[in-house]
Amino acid sequence: MRDGMNSRILLDAAKSCILASSPVFRRQQFLIRCVGGSTDQRDMQALRSLEVDSQSIIRAITPALDPTRHKGQAGNIAVIGGCREYTGAPYFSAISALKIGADLSHVFCTTDAAPVIKSYSPELIVHPVLEESYNVGEEHKSSIASKVLAEVDKWLERFDCLVVGPGLGRDPFLLDCVSEIMRHARQSNIPIVIDGDGLFLVTNNLELVSGYALAVLTPNVNEYKRLVQKVLSSEVNDIDAPQQLLSLAKQIGGVTILRKGNSDLISDGDTGRSFTNLIKSVSVYGSPRRCGGQGDILSGRQVFFFFLSVCGVAVFLSWARQHILAADSNSNIRFKNPTVLGCIAGSAILRKAASLAFSNKKRSTVTGDIIECLGKSLEDISPAS
Amino acid sequence: MRDGMNSRILLDAAKSCILASSPVFRRQQFLIRCVGGSTDQRDMQALRSLEVDSQSIIRAITPALDPTRHKGQAGNIAVIGGCREYTGAPYFSAISALKIGADLSHVFCTTDAAPVIKSYSPELIVHPVLEESYNVGEEHKSSIASKVLAEVDKWLERFDCLVVGPGLGRDPFLLDCVSEIMRHARQSNIPIVIDGDGLFLVTNNLELVSGYALAVLTPNVNEYKRLVQKVLSSEVNDIDAPQQLLSLAKQIGGVTILRKGNSDLISDGDTGRSFTNLIKSVSVYGSPRRCGGQGDILSGRQVFFFFLSVCGVAVFLSWARQHILAADSNSNIRFKNPTVLGCIAGSAILRKAASLAFSNKKRSTVTGDIIECLGKSLEDISPAS
Repeated sequence: MRDGMNSRILLDAAKSCILASSPVFRRQQFLIRCVGGSTDQRDMQALRSLEVDSQSIIRAITPALDPTRHKGQAGNIAVIGGCREYTGAPYFSAISALKIGADLSHVFCTTDAAPVIKSYSPELIVHPVLEESYNVGEEHKSSIASKVLAEVDKWLERFDCLVVGPGLGRDPFLLDCVSEIMRHARQSNIPIVIDGDGLFLVTNNLELVSGYALAVLTPNVNEYKRLVQKVLSSEVNDIDAPQQLLSLAKQIGGVTILRKGNSDLISDGDTGRSFTNLIKSVSVYGSPRRCGGQGDILSGRQVFFFFLSVCGVAVFLSWARQHILAADSNSNIRFKNPTVLGCIAGSAILRKAASLAFSNKKRSTVTGDIIECLGKSLEDISPAS
Repeated sequence: MRDGMNSRILLDAAKSCILASSPVFRRQQFLIRCVGGSTDQRDMQALRSLEVDSQSIIRAITPALDPTRHKGQAGNIAVIGGCREYTGAPYFSAISALKIGADLSHVFCTTDAAPVIKSYSPELIVHPVLEESYNVGEEHKSSIASKVLAEVDKWLERFDCLVVGPGLGRDPFLLDCVSEIMRHARQSNIPIVIDGDGLFLVTNNLELVSGYALAVLTPNVNEYKRLVQKVLSSEVNDIDAPQQLLSLAKQIGGVTILRKGNSDLISDGDTGRSFTNLIKSVSVYGSPRRCGGQGDILSGRQVFFFFLSVCGVAVFLSWARQHILAADSNSNIRFKNPTVLGCIAGSAILRKAASLAFSNKKRSTVTGDIIECLGKSLEDISPAS
């Protein structure tokens, strides 16, 4: 598998030489400088070391399967999303967490969306607790918001990670309730991975995540553009993309950002940890087929609905935190940022699954086919036994 | 694959000789004359060249899979259909589009039908926006119609093709709303493929499509009969079927008609493009098993419920339009009608999928089995890599 991957990297590097004058090439040059390489003979070596990194990280943080561990130790994830209009996105996100190896996967959605999401799979724990404005009279909003929050609070401490946004919609009352849920999660130091309409919410309410080191934003092209406009008051700069990403993450107080595109770029704004190296890139694997849900992980374009990557990030982030807590005092990993590790691992596993699915199903690949390949993707890199 | 196809054609031709005096044979004779062949030694050659055509067309218009393309470029299709009574037809139509290779597939249906269609698959984007009369007081009809139209308008410009009719039902208020949606789509030059109850609507309101070159009608035997009675004020003439189809398409101002039957006949009423050759026929493949959904594509018989072909036509039509737009000025394809190309490719792929499904499942073949074969059908003809 690694050989195939290295061939791909060599091919990419060869293409870069051909495209020496292109913006893509200039971005790669910058990227290599960022991770400490040079812009000349060491290009391929630098790229190769980046790619090997993602596999090593996955192997390091994936917990051993141990019969003495209790249920929940391999991850208890909750997706906040799913409204009258969107039900596919929270389902895809939540089932992905289970297929990667989380023990439990919850969905907190609107009362309308719950029966549909439940019907997709009996594997998920679906809580019909959120409400949208059209269902709530003005005079009841305050009491219903309190009730929503109380319902979520009952569960909150049990979760290793919240995923906010897949299929959330943009109803103002619902978003107000979700803002409160995020504040509570933050008080309890629960990591929050934010995608889709969650990014719409956060872009307009930066204080929800600003300065919270356990927040991860996973924007696609359009979501990233809005974030850059709002936070940096400028337009997206593709030539100096890594530098701009770094500034953005720093400006939001050290949140981690996974910028999805043909290569996924990751930064936590340099938290001062020795490992972080400012920017990481994941560009292995991938599939030329784009379908709703797989989306911009592979294409760099706006996705409206389905989100596969977020729960991969959430599961690996949880595993990375556990691993770091358990690491002995000499281990290098203690100085690494678990949110960055989660982004690298989540991105690589999804890319590999998409690549496997495409090799089987070609043009007819749909999101469910990619989900079915998540297990094998992880098993190939980090066998369970 | 082509050898098997040719054998089938030879067998068909031999049967034709035996049945020299039958109406079927006389139809074939006419067909061959229409496409420029003779009625003697060149019969087999004429038929063979027709069949090779469908495969060449599929290969020509199917877009290459390219990771630099963004999501939606391989087709963003919307089905208008699905009511309290019918939910299978819009699901089958919309999922077919994804399995052929469209990027995104939407369904706009009634509020009742939405949870059911959503529950069939999280891959689809299902909008619960339409309403039927029983759900709407007389005094609210105008405001609800405006709301329905506003909801659809938010999305309309993003679609490469609308499919109107699968499981639509015949509720007068709902059909009024759908008429308005069609008028808006037409103003925006979005192709419309019409089947099922959409044909009931159009037959009674010809102005909705008359003169619109991007409209495709896909009638089965009974729907075709009603169309002929309404437009030509005559009965269906099976002996001169191609000539009658040509007159019908011309009379409705150059819409494209795919007349489904044992051989699918296609005409755009001769728009003057050099390619069109008045009439095209697709008779390759097929399965002796008829089930709801696969329907009269293969049997020439009336179908009441499900519609597989329309979304194939919609996807290939979108691809053909893109291909023609991108073709260089010397390319022959620039003078071809994308709606006719879409019908030929859609018809051939569905026939091939039905044939594959039947070879696996025999008498137990159901519509879902055919859908599962759509990907392989296309891959056999136009490999993704």
